[in-house]
Amino acid sequence: MNGLSCGTSRIVGVRFAVYPMADNFAEIIKGALKETDASKVWVQTDDVTTCIRGRSEHVFDTAKAVFAHAAKSGIHVVFNGTFSVGCPGDSEGDAYMNEDDQRLNDAVVRELDVETATHFALYPMADPDYMQIIADQVQTAEKHGTFSGGVHYASRLDGNVNHVFDTLEEAFVNASKTKDRGHVTMTATVSANSPSTKAV
Amino acid sequence: MNGLSCGTSRIVGVRFAVYPMADNFAEIIKGALKETDASKVWVQTDDVTTCIRGRSEHVFDTAKAVFAHAAKSGIHVVFNGTFSVGCPGDSEGDAYMNEDDQRLNDAVVRELDVETATHFALYPMADPDYMQIIADQVQTAEKHGTFSGGVHYASRLDGNVNHVFDTLEEAFVNASKTKDRGHVTMTATVSANSPSTKAV
Repeated sequence: MNGLSCGTSRIVGVRFAVYPMADNFAEIIKGALKETDASKVWVQTDDVTTCIRGRSEHVFDTAKAVFAHAAKSGIHVVFNGTFSVGCPGDSEGDAYMNEDDQRLNDAVVRELDVETATHFALYPMADPDYMQIIADQVQTAEKHGTFSGGVHYASRLDGNVNHVFDTLEEAFVNASKTKDRGHVTMTATVSANSPSTKAV
Repeated sequence: MNGLSCGTSRIVGVRFAVYPMADNFAEIIKGALKETDASKVWVQTDDVTTCIRGRSEHVFDTAKAVFAHAAKSGIHVVFNGTFSVGCPGDSEGDAYMNEDDQRLNDAVVRELDVETATHFALYPMADPDYMQIIADQVQTAEKHGTFSGGVHYASRLDGNVNHVFDTLEEAFVNASKTKDRGHVTMTATVSANSPSTKAV
């Protein structure tokens, strides 16, 4: 939380939105939500973003599913979100921490062939060694074969949506373990079907 | 930078994208870029996001102009970006720090009537008192009359695009001064013309 009310559990959350660049964007989003099983996460939506919270694996599973189902249309779709754990005061939705670890969407989404280009950045808070924690997670991305270099303020990943979300999840969980019970956030911009060339 | 190469100057940057939810999204973005004078900032674009860097006032002025010119179409358009200052190693583009402080786009954009709903979050790095720095900037937002409460992981602003960007800029600059020569980042999601109701 950025401000005043955030708990003590290791509940993970993401505040995100999916942007289909098409006249029928609302229809695409509604369709993707309908195809996603979000029953193991706490969900709240307003007119700017959606927040989902719960166990780490379900937060990543659900976010990936909404994006992948929207992107499989072939339309240019972008996922933009900030993941967070350890935010001081973050307790609402704790009941969802009692869910088991069986992912509800992964089997279906593993079958989807959605290529993505991604920028992500890790922010381990209140830690003088935060740059080292970040550098260590570049190695995680290299291990997954998705890392394609640093850009100003972020690192770039390329690959299938499943490999990219696997990378994001592992980097986030690793950084969050390094920080023990501290506060870590991670921004991610995941783009599919862009008509732009991969120039730099 | 999230990783390995970032300097010593107080150059400010933002990595962002503007998402028009319309079939002719590319045309809207190109039109907005054409109407924006970006000659006082360093610009680099790839297929995921655009990075602009320079003096704080020109970074905010340019980012606001691109978004406002896209949003004045009436189309549902979202700006999503992460502002950064003090990133260790950030020096490329330092020549732009020699520009004067005359904003190139503000006069035109002040005339635009674009209403927005915004979520933003400040991340002062490597500081155990970061939550206090964040809380102080909620007061900046209250002063501007744009603050409409906290949401999980973020604060919400509502209002005209100019008032909202004024708030974002002042909150970011204040936090960056509190941190002296430290590293501060800020995420912002600014939405215009959404068909969704302001639920929650």
